[in-house]
Amino acid sequence: MIADDMTPEGRRIEIPARHGAAFRLNRGQRLRVIDPQGEQVSDMLAFNAHDINEVISSGRSLDYASKLFLTTGDPLYSNRSNIMLKIMEDTVGRHDFLLTPCSKDTFRIIYGDEHPHQGCFGNLAHALQPYGVTPDQIPTAFNIFMNVNIGADGSFTVDAPKSKAGDHILFEAHMDLIVALTACSALQSNNYAFKPIHYAIETVQLDAI
Amino acid sequence: MIADDMTPEGRRIEIPARHGAAFRLNRGQRLRVIDPQGEQVSDMLAFNAHDINEVISSGRSLDYASKLFLTTGDPLYSNRSNIMLKIMEDTVGRHDFLLTPCSKDTFRIIYGDEHPHQGCFGNLAHALQPYGVTPDQIPTAFNIFMNVNIGADGSFTVDAPKSKAGDHILFEAHMDLIVALTACSALQSNNYAFKPIHYAIETVQLDAI
Repeated sequence: MIADDMTPEGRRIEIPARHGAAFRLNRGQRLRVIDPQGEQVSDMLAFNAHDINEVISSGRSLDYASKLFLTTGDPLYSNRSNIMLKIMEDTVGRHDFLLTPCSKDTFRIIYGDEHPHQGCFGNLAHALQPYGVTPDQIPTAFNIFMNVNIGADGSFTVDAPKSKAGDHILFEAHMDLIVALTACSALQSNNYAFKPIHYAIETVQLDAI
Repeated sequence: MIADDMTPEGRRIEIPARHGAAFRLNRGQRLRVIDPQGEQVSDMLAFNAHDINEVISSGRSLDYASKLFLTTGDPLYSNRSNIMLKIMEDTVGRHDFLLTPCSKDTFRIIYGDEHPHQGCFGNLAHALQPYGVTPDQIPTAFNIFMNVNIGADGSFTVDAPKSKAGDHILFEAHMDLIVALTACSALQSNNYAFKPIHYAIETVQLDAI
């Protein structure tokens, strides 16, 4: 468990394999998400820190971008059409914004597990509970490094992430946010090995006049 | 305005161009949505009638189907991974489940309108208000007859619907639902002409023993 008062500026924090974290990211701050070993996915959610009914929206973000795969320069919109985050750097260029976080139901329905792990959904719900977010309020996440490939007929496969050890994506917050991240729990998404995710919160230093 | 107590069984009801409606659909009942003139989209939402926090989920439905384009035989799941509706018949075979309902923001951001129409989003919010649904609770809709074509690089275009006059899709409810429908308000989605949508609620008659 990583509380936001334990998140010193700039320090790189590890989310262990199959775990999650939530923290405050203020307007103007930047969030760097790093894949330390390669081929690992991190599901990301964002809520307005002052009103958790405003939440990241895949449907609006994709609609306004007119493309499925967002990368450097693209904004992530809320359900109220406000920009929550903008992608500033991206060394991978392939992320998913179609699918809900893996969950007990994913493992039951897709993998046929009898005793399913709580998945990213459970990890996100647990991490977000102190901020008043209920499981029903968890929408489709921005799935960092997740590599979904779509055929001409619309069928898709979830393939190994294109991220290599040390790859990262950098976001800038356009409003005060509660952000949640995971080290994804679904075998298929991470090329069948569970690995950690690293992140760091960075504040852009303004030059003294 | 069409209230659910004004929705006699089996009668075909018209939603005028750029309008919306919401009504009760009980478990086992069927909903037929008809495009009377052709090339018209209808955004559909569904909420559990007994708990509106349970709502249709594009992310779960697409994930479990492993495809973007749902048709006959495919279930539409809720955010709790329960089946809300199943597609029983589909004479068109192309619908969208990626994009949020068009809204004032769509018309402002994509079309550059100075005095934007409230769009399907506004029509859905208005129709769902009597059921206690707030605008923030409106997710990505199942956009009946909406024809989104995706290029190899993930960029997409919204093209004229493939539906011809009289085409329909038939759903069966797997739980008691509040359903909302529109006659879509976005020019691009409907081949640049605003048209009505028809629907009918049908109850499957069980044979008398």
